[in-house]
Amino acid sequence: MDLKHLNALETILGPKGLIHSADDMVLYETGARYDIGKAAFVARPENTEHVSKLLAYAVQNDIHLIPQSGNTGLVSASTPNPSGTQGILSLDRMNTVIGLDVHNKSVHAGAGIRLSTLNETLEKEGLMFPIDLGADPRLGGMIATNTGGTRCMRYGDVRMNTLGLTVVLADQKGTVLKLTNTLRKNNTGVDWKQMFIGTSGAFGVVTECVLNIVETPKQTATAYLVPNSIEAVPHLMRLMETKLGTMLSAFEGMSKNAITATYDHVTSLNNPFAGSTVPDYVILAEISRDWPLYEGEKPLKNVFEEVLAAVWEDETEPLADALVGRPEEMWALRHAISEGVKSAGKLIAFDVSFKRADSMRFISFMKTELPKSFPDITICDFGHVGDGGLHFNLVLKADDLRSKDPEFEQTLRSFVFDIVVNKYAGSYSAEHAIGPKNQHFYDLYTPAELKRLAHGFKSMSSPAPLGTVKFG
Amino acid sequence: MDLKHLNALETILGPKGLIHSADDMVLYETGARYDIGKAAFVARPENTEHVSKLLAYAVQNDIHLIPQSGNTGLVSASTPNPSGTQGILSLDRMNTVIGLDVHNKSVHAGAGIRLSTLNETLEKEGLMFPIDLGADPRLGGMIATNTGGTRCMRYGDVRMNTLGLTVVLADQKGTVLKLTNTLRKNNTGVDWKQMFIGTSGAFGVVTECVLNIVETPKQTATAYLVPNSIEAVPHLMRLMETKLGTMLSAFEGMSKNAITATYDHVTSLNNPFAGSTVPDYVILAEISRDWPLYEGEKPLKNVFEEVLAAVWEDETEPLADALVGRPEEMWALRHAISEGVKSAGKLIAFDVSFKRADSMRFISFMKTELPKSFPDITICDFGHVGDGGLHFNLVLKADDLRSKDPEFEQTLRSFVFDIVVNKYAGSYSAEHAIGPKNQHFYDLYTPAELKRLAHGFKSMSSPAPLGTVKFG
Repeated sequence: MDLKHLNALETILGPKGLIHSADDMVLYETGARYDIGKAAFVARPENTEHVSKLLAYAVQNDIHLIPQSGNTGLVSASTPNPSGTQGILSLDRMNTVIGLDVHNKSVHAGAGIRLSTLNETLEKEGLMFPIDLGADPRLGGMIATNTGGTRCMRYGDVRMNTLGLTVVLADQKGTVLKLTNTLRKNNTGVDWKQMFIGTSGAFGVVTECVLNIVETPKQTATAYLVPNSIEAVPHLMRLMETKLGTMLSAFEGMSKNAITATYDHVTSLNNPFAGSTVPDYVILAEISRDWPLYEGEKPLKNVFEEVLAAVWEDETEPLADALVGRPEEMWALRHAISEGVKSAGKLIAFDVSFKRADSMRFISFMKTELPKSFPDITICDFGHVGDGGLHFNLVLKADDLRSKDPEFEQTLRSFVFDIVVNKYAGSYSAEHAIGPKNQHFYDLYTPAELKRLAHGFKSMSSPAPLGTVKFG
Repeated sequence: MDLKHLNALETILGPKGLIHSADDMVLYETGARYDIGKAAFVARPENTEHVSKLLAYAVQNDIHLIPQSGNTGLVSASTPNPSGTQGILSLDRMNTVIGLDVHNKSVHAGAGIRLSTLNETLEKEGLMFPIDLGADPRLGGMIATNTGGTRCMRYGDVRMNTLGLTVVLADQKGTVLKLTNTLRKNNTGVDWKQMFIGTSGAFGVVTECVLNIVETPKQTATAYLVPNSIEAVPHLMRLMETKLGTMLSAFEGMSKNAITATYDHVTSLNNPFAGSTVPDYVILAEISRDWPLYEGEKPLKNVFEEVLAAVWEDETEPLADALVGRPEEMWALRHAISEGVKSAGKLIAFDVSFKRADSMRFISFMKTELPKSFPDITICDFGHVGDGGLHFNLVLKADDLRSKDPEFEQTLRSFVFDIVVNKYAGSYSAEHAIGPKNQHFYDLYTPAELKRLAHGFKSMSSPAPLGTVKFG
């Protein structure tokens, strides 16, 4: 990058605000899970005014910026390409709580704060931001992808818990949109913040956010449920919701292959199943209450046991087994499962979603159909049965030559997504939004009319290139 | 209206699809609460294809259509102007449940179905659409205004419970946007449905929707709480949320003036307060659980009594009195209150909102400030303390000459909204969106940059005039 530009950026951002030595940039060029790119520089603005001046300068000088948050995504959206000409706009210095209003149940924070850091602050007040994820991303990325996580069935996704945003546009002036609404009812025109949620930073850089916060759970109980068949799962879930309502805060599915790979990888995990034989499919069901146990009331664990006994007796016989156990232990398996399946070989990960009952139908169908076209691939699926999200993980043996063939992964993706989208009306990106890895499928599956609207909105919001995605 | 057009419209819509006799149009020209206009015709399409052809014809022939749903709003958005040149597009024939998926907890319905009709269908499955309103609107209008109602603190607003929409654009072709998503996690580009929620039908006509549905409450208990002062209310609410969490499903405030007017108007209501003396301010608090009472558990009424006893003992002494009573009786007062305040004189209604604690501060401030500029006006407020929404109702005596002065209402509105928006960063339209009645305030308070974006989106979605609102 031209020294003139680096000097100008340092003037805007201050000495701590710009990194351009190759060694120091590696951290930002490397995704937390996958991805590696090459940056011209890393800009680290401290506030919205910095971001505005930075974007104005970049647009005026044809510098393409890649907004970056926690860089924990799956679709390569937050790393630069290998050319070394793109600059990273990291939000990692905008990482403070700007204001906490316990009476309004809202928090105003910089978009660069990590989820765990935010929740440490909120926990002191018995409150939390209710998006529960395996990774520990920063808020900006969670907004750009509209994550939902493991407790989406109870609390909804990021979109449903975002009250307001501050956004900077990639135009000649670095226009700042103050959409920092703190109200729960406010219908005075277009709710523009929606355009910047789940859209991968293509239309503007989110610098601040106002979020809905909720009471932390005060009572929790968990169980591993073994359904009599995968086909019985939707009915089992409906039955449990009838008996438990919104107490049911997670209903996570784990396949035998995924569990086994995880036990092999994390040997400290306790295998509680009879004879240590992992069942074909296991549901981790959590119930919770966000109020304390009142005097004279039964502990939640006992409530869960009684309800599960009634489910067990149901005439449809949905359950083959059920184990109530300690939440930390049961969640330990679930939280280790991403790393577990990664260790099983060469992983090709799909973050798809369905109508809730369809995710089970899809799994059954793929168990039969996948081997016909793609033999010797292990399906290591796990997912959020409660919201229809499915981590459909496919694992090749480490020495499988196909894993070195660059076209193979794309062929496999096309095969899977075609079934997800065309057979089941599902989504090829549940909560990682669009990035270079699935840009092709956006281009393929998005109706022309919606592409036209996206192109139009891009032109009128951030006409300059921004980020790694093209919607229009 | 030119007979040529009426014939063409009847060809498109069929004989039941068009009304143009003056007598039959009155029902559609008259708002359920206020408003009266004059229509050229009433088009009553039966399906999305009808709406598409209708809009294409209207655009090609410069006919201005006013989409109309339940017509129960407060801002005159769904009635035509008095010219007799505008056509009403009523959705009242698109009033069926298209599909109910209990496993997905979603329902697909025509935008013209009434809330009560939808809930009758859902109730058979123990499910409901969780937006609780005094009026009985149709879904299309609820989407156009993004209502939240009395249980917003528990369930969120219409936006948070809308999965998908079908929308028809006012362009030369009557383009249909199929945004009928049924998924809970789907981030594959822009979530375009958001542009048609809360935007008064200006950008397109919503013809179908896919909604999130929830379990009905299985246990409910209610209480009237008398705070020691209006200033104590935010702390009281926080205290109760700490002890009750999401069990607290409504926290509605009612002023003495509003309650008294309602008792005067609906004499069958039971006044349960000590010595029949209505307190200065009363909270209707509801707790509920969407699961049945398990064996050995205390009835919810007893739980509520014990929690209220603990609140009573709190060192801050927030409560002056508390009465636990039958939910139907306690809600009867709350549901009668809109009509009650209307009967008290000439009503000027404001549907405003604040950060939750600020609504109490606003009321205190106005009790002092309003009489200085506007003497002899009674404040008959009630509101949704749980979400910051406030029905700030001002009542003039029936014989007050100011009620006949057309400029007086606008002067009063400007005075109130200036304080709402500039002093408290509140909203001048909580859940009735924009209509001719508050168009002036949209023009006044919306930043130029957001007007520019709205104008741009109007040009690229529905370039022809549609409805009664101008955002751009």
